[in-house]
This record gives sequence, C-alpha cells and structure tokens, in this order.
Amino acid sequence: MYLTRRETFNAAHRLFRPEYTDEQNFEIFGKCSNPNWHGHNYTLYVTVKGDVNPKTGMVVNLKTLSKIIKELVIEKVDHKNLNTEVDFMKGKMASTEMICLAIWDVLERPIREMGAQLHCVRLEETENNFVEFFG
Amino acid sequence: MYLTRRETFNAAHRLFRPEYTDEQNFEIFGKCSNPNWHGHNYTLYVTVKGDVNPKTGMVVNLKTLSKIIKELVIEKVDHKNLNTEVDFMKGKMASTEMICLAIWDVLERPIREMGAQLHCVRLEETENNFVEFFG
Amino acid sequence: MYLTRRETFNAAHRLFRPEYTDEQNFEIFGKCSNPNWHGHNYTLYVTVKGDVNPKTGMVVNLKTLSKIIKELVIEKVDHKNLNTEVDFMKGKMASTEMICLAIWDVLERPIREMGAQLHCVRLEETENNFVEFFG
Amino acid sequence: MYLTRRETFNAAHRLFRPEYTDEQNFEIFGKCSNPNWHGHNYTLYVTVKGDVNPKTGMVVNLKTLSKIIKELVIEKVDHKNLNTEVDFMKGKMASTEMICLAIWDVLERPIREMGAQLHCVRLEETENNFVEFFG
Amino acid sequence: MYLTRRETFNAAHRLFRPEYTDEQNFEIFGKCSNPNWHGHNYTLYVTVKGDVNPKTGMVVNLKTLSKIIKELVIEKVDHKNLNTEVDFMKGKMASTEMICLAIWDVLERPIREMGAQLHCVRLEETENNFVEFFG
Amino acid sequence: MYLTRRETFNAAHRLFRPEYTDEQNFEIFGKCSNPNWHGHNYTLYVTVKGDVNPKTGMVVNLKTLSKIIKELVIEKVDHKNLNTEVDFMKGKMASTEMICLAIWDVLERPIREMGAQLHCVRLEETENNFVEFFG
Repeated sequence: MYLTRRETFNAAHRLFRPEYTDEQNFEIFGKCSNPNWHGHNYTLYVTVKGDVNPKTGMVVNLKTLSKIIKELVIEKVDHKNLNTEVDFMKGKMASTEMICLAIWDVLERPIREMGAQLHCVRLEETENNFVEFFG
Repeated sequence: MYLTRRETFNAAHRLFRPEYTDEQNFEIFGKCSNPNWHGHNYTLYVTVKGDVNPKTGMVVNLKTLSKIIKELVIEKVDHKNLNTEVDFMKGKMASTEMICLAIWDVLERPIREMGAQLHCVRLEETENNFVEFFG
Repeated sequence: MYLTRRETFNAAHRLFRPEYTDEQNFEIFGKCSNPNWHGHNYTLYVTVKGDVNPKTGMVVNLKTLSKIIKELVIEKVDHKNLNTEVDFMKGKMASTEMICLAIWDVLERPIREMGAQLHCVRLEETENNFVEFFG
Repeated sequence: MYLTRRETFNAAHRLFRPEYTDEQNFEIFGKCSNPNWHGHNYTLYVTVKGDVNPKTGMVVNLKTLSKIIKELVIEKVDHKNLNTEVDFMKGKMASTEMICLAIWDVLERPIREMGAQLHCVRLEETENNFVEFFG
Repeated sequence: MYLTRRETFNAAHRLFRPEYTDEQNFEIFGKCSNPNWHGHNYTLYVTVKGDVNPKTGMVVNLKTLSKIIKELVIEKVDHKNLNTEVDFMKGKMASTEMICLAIWDVLERPIREMGAQLHCVRLEETENNFVEFFG
Repeated sequence: MYLTRRETFNAAHRLFRPEYTDEQNFEIFGKCSNPNWHGHNYTLYVTVKGDVNPKTGMVVNLKTLSKIIKELVIEKVDHKNLNTEVDFMKGKMASTEMICLAIWDVLERPIREMGAQLHCVRLEETENNFVEFFG
C-alpha cells in the first residue's frame, strides 16, 4: 500500500553556476538564471510504502508523517531563498531535480524509523513541470 | 497500455476501534475519531492494464468499465456511511487504506472477466491525502 | 479592492425535516437524506472589501483574516457533524445554503471590527455545486 | 458579455517597508518579509466587458488580448524580482494588492483602445489567496 | 443567495464566416478557423439567484436544476458539432460568446418557472479562456 | 530521476471503423462515433528518465524538451482533426490509446538523442479518462 501526503511551500531561487558569466548562465538556464531571483509555489508529494497495520487500518499515521515533512522540509524552505538559506541545499544547484534529491535524503531515514519506507518524492515547480525520484 | 477512469463519491466515516475508549481513539486517530462522524468527497481512480484491441483501438470499453465501477462500488458507497452501511466494508476499519483494499477486491475479478487486468486503485480522501494499491 | 481567503473543512451532514417520514425526506432530498449521514470536503472562500492601506499595501492582514476564519468557523465545523455538533447551525437545515448564511452571520462583525467589510461567502460542497451569499 | 483570459508568471518578492527594522517588518508581514526573498507562481485573470461583435461573434479577439497582456505585463514580471526589476512597481509595496492595482493601470488604456472595457483584474498568489480589482 | 451548478460537455466547432475565403477566415480567427474542425472540453456553470426556501433550506432543488440543464443543453451539445448539429446554434457563429448567449436564452424561462432567476451563464472553453453573461 | 513536461492541445476526432455502418459504430463507440465529429482539450504529460547532470542540476533542459514536444506533436495536432489531418495518425483509430502510442513513437528517438530516455506518455482526454504508455 502506498500513502501520499501533499504539502506546499513558496520560495525564491535562481539557476546558475558561479564560475559562469551572466551571459553564459542565461544561455544555459534562460530566464531562470535572473541574478535578482524569481520564485515558485512548489507542491511536494511524499509517498511512503508499507503494510497496512491491522490494528489501525493505516500504513503510517498521517499526522506524524505530515509533522515530519513540515519540520524537516517545509519549515526550512517555505518563504526562503533556496540558493542561500536552506541548510540541506548548501553547495547545490537549486534546480527542481536537486531540491527533490535533497528532500529524499532528508526524509529517507526518519520515515524508515516510523516503520515505513520512502517510495517517491515528487516536486512540482509549476503546473507544467515536475520531477519524481524513487531512490 | 494503462487506462484510468475517475469516479467520485461522498460518504461519512469515522476512524475508531470499538474496544477503545473515546479518549484512546482520539489519541490514535485524532479528529477522525469523532463519534458523530465526519465525511469526505472521495475521488477514485481505477487503472486497468491490457493490450490495445486492434479492432477498436481501446484497452477496454470505457463505458463498460465506468458501468462496472458505478454498479459495484459507487452505488454502494455514495451518500453512505462507510462504517455501517457498506457490505464490502463490514467488520473493517473505514480508513482510506482499507476502503482502497476493499475496492480492489470488489473490482479485480469483474475487470479480469472484461479481458483486462486491474493495475491500480487510487483513492483520494482530500487534496492532501491519497493511497494507491497495486495488488 | 477585494481580498479572498480559501479554507477547507471536512464534515458529515444530512438533509431532512424531522416532521417528515424517511420516505418523504427521500422524495425531497434524495440520497442527501440518508439517516446514517454522508459527508463532504467543503471549500470556503471568504471575500472582504476595503481600501488598500498605503502603509502595508494590504486590505487587511491575511494572517489575521485566516486566524479569524479558523477560530470562528473551521474549528467548529471541521471533522464535525453539521446537524448535531455546530453551535451556529442549531435548529437549522444543514444545507449548503444555510451553512453559507450562518458563516456570513458569524464572520460579518469580526471582519467589520478588523476595518474591512465582508463582501462574499462562497461555499463549495463538491466540484459541481456551490453557493454564494453577498449579504 | 464578459471575457476572461488567464495568464501565469513566476516571480520573487518581499513585503517590507525600508524605514522599518527587520524585526518590525517581521511583526507586520511575517515570513513574507524575509530579506532574502521568496516567490510565487502567480495566476492572472484579466476580464474585459463589451458587446459581442455580430460579425466575429467575439467581444474582442482573444489573440490580441493575450498579446497585449503578455507584452505589457507578463514579459515585465515573469522570472523577475517584483521589488526591484519591474518598472510599473517602482516605489510600491510588492503586495498582491499593489501588483493587481498596477496591472489595472497598465492594461486599462490599451484595452479601451481595443474597443472593450477592462472589467476586473484578478491576481492569485497561492491557491489560498487572491485579490480582485474592478476599477 | 446564488446557487451554481457545473456541467461539462465535449464538442467540435470551427470559427468562420461562410462569405470569407479560408485565408480571410484564418486571418481573423487563426487556427480556430480550421475547416476540418477542432474541439474542446467545455465547462458550463449555471448560476441561479433566489431566496432560500425556509422549508427545504434550498434556493432550488439541485437535482431539478441539473436535470433541466442536462435535458435542454448538455444532451444537445455533448459529443456534437456546434456549427451543424445544435438547434439553438442554427445560423450563429460557434464562438464561446455566442454559445453562452444561446444557453442563456434556452435556460432563462425554465429556471424562472422553477421559481428562481437565472443570474449568470459561464462557459469555459479552455483553462485559459472563459466568458460570462448576466442577461 | 524522472522529469515530466505538461503540454495541452485542442482537437476534433471521431471513433469509428469505416467498414461498419453508423448503427454498428454507435453500438461499439457510443456518442464518440458521431459522424459530424466532437472534440477535446487534451492534456499531454511526457516523462523522461535520466541521471541528473552534475553541471546543470538537470536531467535534460526543459526548454529543449518542451520545444521538441511542441514541434513534433503539438503543432501537428493542435486545432486539428485527429482522424484526417495528422500524419502520424494516418490509418489509425483516433482513440486516446492510439494517439498515445503514436506520440510515443514520435518522441522516443528525439528524446534518446537528447541523452535521456522516454519513460511515459500520458494523455488525458477528459478529467475522467486518461491513458499511460511506458514502452
């Protein structure tokens, strides 16, 4: 059984490599390289996998799952600058792919300790673009 | 090829174990244990898997698939109390996970008899929570 | 300027008049009269009207508006039975129209005391049905 | 007849008054005052009002309307910093209300010159918050 | 109190004037003038206005409203060609505006005879374009 | 890492086999067999799979992916008749399944040449029906 929790956050970011000029960054990353930042309403889906507990009828307690996601991810990224303010993004490109990977790394162990298994992190940047990572 | 049909229903439910006190149920299930019930607009996605019939260009006839889902599931749960009124939920917790499992059991054979294979039952309780079962 | 805040809640309800038989209630209210309850994910939109404060650039502080709606409405109806457990619905039909009217009555004064004016309460019962009240 | 066109853009912003300390800004604007910016996927709805042209069956040509909105608004705000990079936001708070007002001012005349009348600018910051201005 | 019912239909159409050449039609109507047709999933919102009946707690019976819309509109346009097959569109441009006006004319009287008043017909052609008519 | 791009198009189609009578076609395909066509707003999701490029933080460049999908698919189907005007649909049933398969065939190689792997084509015909093909 797969159980998914949706959470949302709003953040600023920029795609660029510091060793490149603004022109080079624009050529590769387009408008996303704007040095003055832009931002998104991100939608995060965290899917865990596990057996249904016959006592509770649940894979894991959704309230606990939501609390873990909020404490370990949302509070660190919501209304923040993903390039400069988020500990688990230090030294990484702030692309949707890299944020998704980083969120996987943050959540994998705590969810295992809840008795379930992290199955998928899905991160939507806009209604037209999203990424999924399955470990 | 995977073909998915979406259907919706509205129902009341409550999460609790009869052998627990209201306080114990509240501790485990939170507001969902309210003895006076609450309810949801559930969204159900049924995905079947099969080869595309070269004559019709279809995996299965969507009208038939929708009819089966409506007769075997929607008519039994729509505007109903999931804890007390639904035959295939008798003696089970009315959690999203258990409803999803029960719907799988109800649909698996009739869809096989249509010449396709049930691949996934996805049940959304709110815009923030959903479960998926793949058999 | 009109500012709208969206909040959601899940609740059980039933449409019926106590002086009618179950058959009479079914004739008028259809499946919504089920004596064992059913429920919905309600979506509530509260729209306030006012001048934009030149200091803050805001009509009202959204955090305060959201807090008022949550304290005075959401906490009283979320995961509740709208027929039996909600003080501001006592003695009223639990139809979308009557809930909408009651929410208007609850919010009108507190929003006036915030320095804005309640303009519209919109209550969505399903993706297919909603009501709006403008006072 | 009222005709509405939806467009979207992604931008960074921050709510603050320069004469206040960070603490004072946080007290009034909360997380939205983060000095390192955050951002949103904004959704813009522009509604024009007019008679239906009996020759074309249209209020205005949607392609022209969309072109005007894109040239005068979207290209100036998309992937931009609303506080520092947008000419029509110079010297203004970057709140949803003020952006909405500024978009009204930008579009009012060009739409009049198309032979229609700007009726409403609606700007959605998140799925939970939006503003509307009717002139 | 305003009550809204959503219904959907799928149809083919084409924007053109028979007295123009294909080139002239393309210049005015763009890709929508394709002589081989294209189509849409239309979403229709019908809003009625009225007092809340104190006996039923309703403006009008939603089931009756939905039945009227289905019989008088949806059955005539769903899976149809809006230019050639719909009686109430005979001799009219199949633009969203003209379809909306025609639906108003079809529904105005039957809704008045139900004891309510048609307030708004809103017709969405795509997620980016919609029209509203208020009589 | 899986990266998905959403694109949309509007088209007319009809389900039928030329060797059948209209009655036979109606029996099998229902309203979808209407000889005068109907249409849809199709939503297309293209998912590619690949390693994250450590230089760019991306699986593939989304702008390039979107450009390929637009040039090879959207421009050929948007505002078109899927039965008669689309080269890659010649001689095929215009069912959602067959369109999905044809889009897979069109995109598989160009995406491989971008250095990624086509993982899934998902095509939504309405909010209630969609198909997915994984190769």
